[in-house]
Amino acid sequence: MPTPDTATLLIHCPDQPGLVHDVTGFISSHQGNILDLQQHIDPIENAFFMRVEWSLENFTLEQGEIEDRLSPMARRHQMQCELYFSTKKRRVALFVTKENHCLYDLLARHEAGELPVEIPVVVSNHETLRPAAERFGIPFRVFPITPETKAVQEAAQLELLREERVDTVVLARYMQIISPAMIEAFPNRILNIHHSFLPAFVGAKPYHQAFERGVKLIGATSHYVTAELDQGPIIYQDVIRVSHEETVGDLVRLGRDLEKTVLAKALWQHVRNQVLVYRNKTVVFS
Amino acid sequence: MPTPDTATLLIHCPDQPGLVHDVTGFISSHQGNILDLQQHIDPIENAFFMRVEWSLENFTLEQGEIEDRLSPMARRHQMQCELYFSTKKRRVALFVTKENHCLYDLLARHEAGELPVEIPVVVSNHETLRPAAERFGIPFRVFPITPETKAVQEAAQLELLREERVDTVVLARYMQIISPAMIEAFPNRILNIHHSFLPAFVGAKPYHQAFERGVKLIGATSHYVTAELDQGPIIYQDVIRVSHEETVGDLVRLGRDLEKTVLAKALWQHVRNQVLVYRNKTVVFS
Amino acid sequence: MPTPDTATLLIHCPDQPGLVHDVTGFISSHQGNILDLQQHIDPIENAFFMRVEWSLENFTLEQGEIEDRLSPMARRHQMQCELYFSTKKRRVALFVTKENHCLYDLLARHEAGELPVEIPVVVSNHETLRPAAERFGIPFRVFPITPETKAVQEAAQLELLREERVDTVVLARYMQIISPAMIEAFPNRILNIHHSFLPAFVGAKPYHQAFERGVKLIGATSHYVTAELDQGPIIYQDVIRVSHEETVGDLVRLGRDLEKTVLAKALWQHVRNQVLVYRNKTVVFS
Amino acid sequence: MPTPDTATLLIHCPDQPGLVHDVTGFISSHQGNILDLQQHIDPIENAFFMRVEWSLENFTLEQGEIEDRLSPMARRHQMQCELYFSTKKRRVALFVTKENHCLYDLLARHEAGELPVEIPVVVSNHETLRPAAERFGIPFRVFPITPETKAVQEAAQLELLREERVDTVVLARYMQIISPAMIEAFPNRILNIHHSFLPAFVGAKPYHQAFERGVKLIGATSHYVTAELDQGPIIYQDVIRVSHEETVGDLVRLGRDLEKTVLAKALWQHVRNQVLVYRNKTVVFS
Repeated sequence: MPTPDTATLLIHCPDQPGLVHDVTGFISSHQGNILDLQQHIDPIENAFFMRVEWSLENFTLEQGEIEDRLSPMARRHQMQCELYFSTKKRRVALFVTKENHCLYDLLARHEAGELPVEIPVVVSNHETLRPAAERFGIPFRVFPITPETKAVQEAAQLELLREERVDTVVLARYMQIISPAMIEAFPNRILNIHHSFLPAFVGAKPYHQAFERGVKLIGATSHYVTAELDQGPIIYQDVIRVSHEETVGDLVRLGRDLEKTVLAKALWQHVRNQVLVYRNKTVVFS
Repeated sequence: MPTPDTATLLIHCPDQPGLVHDVTGFISSHQGNILDLQQHIDPIENAFFMRVEWSLENFTLEQGEIEDRLSPMARRHQMQCELYFSTKKRRVALFVTKENHCLYDLLARHEAGELPVEIPVVVSNHETLRPAAERFGIPFRVFPITPETKAVQEAAQLELLREERVDTVVLARYMQIISPAMIEAFPNRILNIHHSFLPAFVGAKPYHQAFERGVKLIGATSHYVTAELDQGPIIYQDVIRVSHEETVGDLVRLGRDLEKTVLAKALWQHVRNQVLVYRNKTVVFS
Repeated sequence: MPTPDTATLLIHCPDQPGLVHDVTGFISSHQGNILDLQQHIDPIENAFFMRVEWSLENFTLEQGEIEDRLSPMARRHQMQCELYFSTKKRRVALFVTKENHCLYDLLARHEAGELPVEIPVVVSNHETLRPAAERFGIPFRVFPITPETKAVQEAAQLELLREERVDTVVLARYMQIISPAMIEAFPNRILNIHHSFLPAFVGAKPYHQAFERGVKLIGATSHYVTAELDQGPIIYQDVIRVSHEETVGDLVRLGRDLEKTVLAKALWQHVRNQVLVYRNKTVVFS
Repeated sequence: MPTPDTATLLIHCPDQPGLVHDVTGFISSHQGNILDLQQHIDPIENAFFMRVEWSLENFTLEQGEIEDRLSPMARRHQMQCELYFSTKKRRVALFVTKENHCLYDLLARHEAGELPVEIPVVVSNHETLRPAAERFGIPFRVFPITPETKAVQEAAQLELLREERVDTVVLARYMQIISPAMIEAFPNRILNIHHSFLPAFVGAKPYHQAFERGVKLIGATSHYVTAELDQGPIIYQDVIRVSHEETVGDLVRLGRDLEKTVLAKALWQHVRNQVLVYRNKTVVFS
């Protein structure tokens, strides 16, 4: 079925009476029909969060006009706004190293029409997964990274992402630490999948750590990448039950299922514009 | 901490543009500050659902005036409205037979201040659980039921519920079929816990049925009681994993944990005014 | 890492004292080292079930001799035995129609070395998924089926499976009812994935049924195919939480994740020789 | 139904061929019928673990003789053995402070006959829960603890536990750190419930920590108490999903359900003699 033509507005600002009324007034006054509206108040921070999606079918403003026309209200309430259009698909670059499960999972979802994004390129520091990407007709670009070449290669990656007008980067088991320059270029737009239930087992070899500690559940966490390793805002997490019977190898194998579903879910929420970041935490509208 | 003084309005009506704006306008115009607002649209039925909770601290209308003042808007949009006040606790009667786990669970939650309700009476068709209720200081009333006495006893139960100004009935493993008269007297206000993942294993001995079928998960379902057995609108469900190792007795034992948490969760959602019933389904706001 | 060279014996028979001792005696007396032993007793049926896996490294019998040498003990205790060798991979045929998620998931697991099987062929009644199979280098065979051609085509399918020495058939969202002839040819060796939490929502369009009933969890079930539709022994099931917000389309999308993980898990258990069928139920050793 | 008269033997020792055969030989030679047998091998540590339960109905040894008669085999294989009899119920002391949910849950299970233990005493450092314990007819003993009195009071607690022949101590939300003396007196027999998914959020106020970090799941962990705080062998864990909508108060409320079910499950496994501790991890037989 065709994607309905909608606009989605994400807002956060200091809380005060009348905010919902003001925003819905703006939409109604231009003949927009609200399809979904959710708000959230953090009473401790006195912060207001809102997601509203409306049909553009009879809307009397052009896409290009909306932001301008919103700005007086935004200024009045100190709103930080993000505006998205369903007809303008996000362009997503997938970064991988050698493990194929997240890559195949995302490419298969994409091919099935399940993920409303464009995937212009798969980026890697190894050749290993070239056949996987190329089977799905996606260009595969390798940037081999050593301590010496890291800075240069990352600059080249950034250049590629700009050329390809990439909006969002997905680290689909990419085994390199992302440089501050790239994090700054894609604030809250780099998704990572960490193979533990954060904040447990930060850093390397989390399944080995989990095995050593003898936990009875293992997890995976998708979060936005920030300067501090594995400390970014958490988007989605899940766990599965394990027992003494599982070896580290079993945990790795079982964890793959978690990693791919958790990453896909987080990406879905991200590209559906359901996620707002605030003070290193996420508000994830449903 | 003291309960904040709030009003909650549940609405459903045919969908049309401007509904949220109208309702928030009513609240803003009387200086109400919205604490939570959620809406849902069923595009197939063209139905609109909304839950809005606002602070009465500076609200310029008295509790008793609100319904009247809402009525022009309600008529205009064919709204069905329910209005609740946080300061007016629901009075909940618990119906039990012989199993104690749901009863103890609800009474312990109540004593811990976790359930914002009053429990004026526990009703049973057996003496078995009298000590349990009386330990918590709740009056225990027995209505022994045989095929011959059923009609008379249910009339007496109804009379008691009226005297006690009961708002909601919770069948906490009450092993009698509820008569149409009581269902009519408490529309969408009788909660049952069925010990299966409905619609699987309707009727008697669901754990035996589950054992026979060899399922790998067992469940529990809390639903509103309607005229058709185990067919009412589902409020909440959950499952746990089982295996060939479990006997029927184990399923019964494990199921108890599900039953008590599922029933408590459904009751929590009910008394927090999060549940709207529509065409034998529930909209459960979060 | 290389697959260790092991034998696995699955046994069921009437229960009596000394069974474990007898079986372990057989293995010990030929210098086999037991790696895993699990047993289960059904006290109601007085039935005994056992799975034992031992190393063939120092075992003094050849693979081809073991069955013969076991037979006196098997006869004595009326044992039904199945014997498997880790070095002899199961040959698995995948049957698909148009949906790609289970197919891609299984092929990607296979390519990653996660599934210890050979996949000689993908069979379909439509051309749709030919590119998917061929990308992974697996032969794709189409048998278009109409009511008139069904009998002939199924005979041709059976012929193909024999030629390819197929051990196990996986219905990875194959939208045709399997004929009795094929079920007889592969007893407890045809795995299906049904897109509901069986026994709820048997038959067609289970997500529509689930939506209509307003359930709060949806499920998927993998079972062995038997003559009665959706009534075969259940191997594995799982569920995820849904709400009123999900449309039927959302349920279909969310269900895909369940279907692929549930089917992959059931297949894993099957090819690891963990599953014993008894009276239309499974004993699934861990 | 009456408890069947059984013996359960837990074994761990260095792995070698023939262990299961030897143990089952011992049982068979005295006419014991094995009801359940599970073993586990840790190939890295070369360690063997086994749980076997057999009927004493026709067993030719008296309970008091078994340990002696096992000892030659135990010495031969360097086995560490634990022997339990179903007819000899564990005596369990519950330690609490002010929160009632775990206490009520365990007492209600006990009253329902679900927990095969004796509960001779509830111990607390506060008077708060006296009515709760006394309602169930369990003696309640208070040992008020200040930094000055801690040593003396703990000695008195130990004395009480000895008098009451307590086998197992359950810290059912007991808000004091346990002294080394008590830990030594009850090695792997003090169960704690920690209100986080360990090893995340060790120490105080885990729900506050979880809220700060913005996790999407919260957990509870039951473990044996060791000298290092929150670092003991994990017996059981579980999690539930939360979102940005939950306040710290909501996490505390939701966590209560986890805490009580996780603690009850761990205690069940402990008193059913399913748990073996090895190198700060547990083997939990099913």
